[in-house]
Amino acid sequence: MRTLTLQDLHDIAAGSAVLGTGGGGDPYIGELAAVRSLEQYGPPQLMGVDDLADTDRVAIPFMIGSPVPLIEKFPLGAELTAAFDGLSRFLSDPVTAVMPVEIGGVNSMVPLSLSSRLGKPVVDADCMGRAFPEGQLITLTLDGIGMSPVSLADERGNNVILETCDNFWLERFGRSLAIDFGAIAAGVGAPITGRQVRESTVHGSLSYAERIGRAIRQARAAKQDGVAAILSETHGFEIFRGKITDVQRRIERGWTLGEAVLDGLDTYLGSRLVVQFQNENLVAIRDETIVASVPDLITILDAELGDAITTEHLRYGYRVVVVGIRCDPKWRTPAGIALAGPRHFGYDVDYVPIELRVGGTAAVG
Amino acid sequence: MRTLTLQDLHDIAAGSAVLGTGGGGDPYIGELAAVRSLEQYGPPQLMGVDDLADTDRVAIPFMIGSPVPLIEKFPLGAELTAAFDGLSRFLSDPVTAVMPVEIGGVNSMVPLSLSSRLGKPVVDADCMGRAFPEGQLITLTLDGIGMSPVSLADERGNNVILETCDNFWLERFGRSLAIDFGAIAAGVGAPITGRQVRESTVHGSLSYAERIGRAIRQARAAKQDGVAAILSETHGFEIFRGKITDVQRRIERGWTLGEAVLDGLDTYLGSRLVVQFQNENLVAIRDETIVASVPDLITILDAELGDAITTEHLRYGYRVVVVGIRCDPKWRTPAGIALAGPRHFGYDVDYVPIELRVGGTAAVG
Repeated sequence: MRTLTLQDLHDIAAGSAVLGTGGGGDPYIGELAAVRSLEQYGPPQLMGVDDLADTDRVAIPFMIGSPVPLIEKFPLGAELTAAFDGLSRFLSDPVTAVMPVEIGGVNSMVPLSLSSRLGKPVVDADCMGRAFPEGQLITLTLDGIGMSPVSLADERGNNVILETCDNFWLERFGRSLAIDFGAIAAGVGAPITGRQVRESTVHGSLSYAERIGRAIRQARAAKQDGVAAILSETHGFEIFRGKITDVQRRIERGWTLGEAVLDGLDTYLGSRLVVQFQNENLVAIRDETIVASVPDLITILDAELGDAITTEHLRYGYRVVVVGIRCDPKWRTPAGIALAGPRHFGYDVDYVPIELRVGGTAAVG
Repeated sequence: MRTLTLQDLHDIAAGSAVLGTGGGGDPYIGELAAVRSLEQYGPPQLMGVDDLADTDRVAIPFMIGSPVPLIEKFPLGAELTAAFDGLSRFLSDPVTAVMPVEIGGVNSMVPLSLSSRLGKPVVDADCMGRAFPEGQLITLTLDGIGMSPVSLADERGNNVILETCDNFWLERFGRSLAIDFGAIAAGVGAPITGRQVRESTVHGSLSYAERIGRAIRQARAAKQDGVAAILSETHGFEIFRGKITDVQRRIERGWTLGEAVLDGLDTYLGSRLVVQFQNENLVAIRDETIVASVPDLITILDAELGDAITTEHLRYGYRVVVVGIRCDPKWRTPAGIALAGPRHFGYDVDYVPIELRVGGTAAVG
């Protein structure tokens, strides 16, 4: 168990934005929410998966919806507490800890904020090892574990409890309700047991995000290359360097959908990369060929600072580096690829691991 | 307290379709659902409002959504029981009776079906005195009474509990969820007290529907005019006689929206009537002039049989009579007109009571 400092929160938010692959929310907002809760209620505690008892009960708080309106709806906090209280009426056993559903600038930080408010630790794990745009795309689904009941709430006194037969129905209802709540809603998923966390989640993902964030910060302090620091920390791959020349973005069914077009610079001069996203970056297409795809991580970094640029902040003129990072091995199983691979998102291609694509030995497109 | 027979159920369904003003569901389906429950669980009991104790707890079961898919989704029953069970976990006091939210071919019968299943009586009252397309358009709203929590359920094991700050939010969430459930969902609203039923609902509406249904049946048996029998029983007004020459209908946001165009016959020859609907008939426009509008009731009757024709059954070629019936006085107050009058539905006209419009003294359009 470790008490997190303000700097730790900053590093986790910055690193989570890298692992959020364009989605998961703005790390500035996520950090601010966690910092405010720390200042008001005390610092959150981070506990390792190995410190969980089998019978621990780990609830899963999150924001669901399109990240763009979140910027206007800040602060989080009251809604989260309301969602937690709404859920608690259903629970026979008390919640002993919380954990993120996904790693992203906001959704990594929401459990840290709730941790401060509740005085319960955050488990160093999550259900994706990245961010995904649909709630059923969690490692729990691979093991047949439902996240239901889920409680959604707002600051007006509205509270919706979803009990569903599977995580697909949860996503379906949750997405509609997020729109009705005003494009985004605060939610808390039912506790899973300590044993389920050990067996069916991605371990160490918050500390992984923290190491990435620290690497960015230290590189910046030393006036070194932030992108190189991220690639070193993640064993990731540079996919492209270029300038953003077009961004198409629309909000549909509670998601931000669209694509960014990049014209190559340096060794990529004369080449063009298109990154298509549904909240999160789904595929990177270089000169008509897919060079990276879900479930691997595709992140657009500011070429100067190394900071991850989330979907809602993509702008014409940005000089960026696009990197690819291996996803968790759970996503590379046949079931994982079937659940969250490129075909799920409508791309008629097989999944090829990023290290094979970038190595050039399997340029399928 | 009165035990209802199969014939009573038939009459209530037929009369409810007249008061359903085109919506509230197909009386054939509603009757069948109530009859099956009667056969399996015993007959429902109808109790008068005056027999309620102040502390009785009256729950409000209903179907929400677009009536068209209901025809394919029959039978009702398991979903209703699931919705009731989902709600019951929240209640400290047991439900002592049920009542309809609205009067319509299905939504009058849903409480009768649940009454048989639960062995609890149905109160002879409802929250509209007719059918309306939006859940907040209930007399409870006029008195600041929330119907929350509402439980929605299906036969797959999905159950959603809505606790909202008012009935407008309830409608908003419920409408979206009905679509996600497959265009229509079964729901049960939280019990109100016997005293609230006495003060804030429309009294005697099920027996009113029953009298209308009986009048239609008896007229048919005597080979008399069913339409005349309805007008006599309701003190209603004939607005138009004609043939349906066009029906436009689309499903949108969980409603069936559109209009029917009628060319006049007999004394109406050369005249044209347009009835516009949103599940329920909203306005009747004769030769460019509104001749009847919500909250008064506008119903299209089969000219031969006198049966009400619900929105989903309107067809080219039908010979019909359009009738207007006074709404409950609660809807004729300034608050009632503001909540459910023509302006709420986007018509830029003042509400004029049907008896004044048809009397010809106030032809505003």
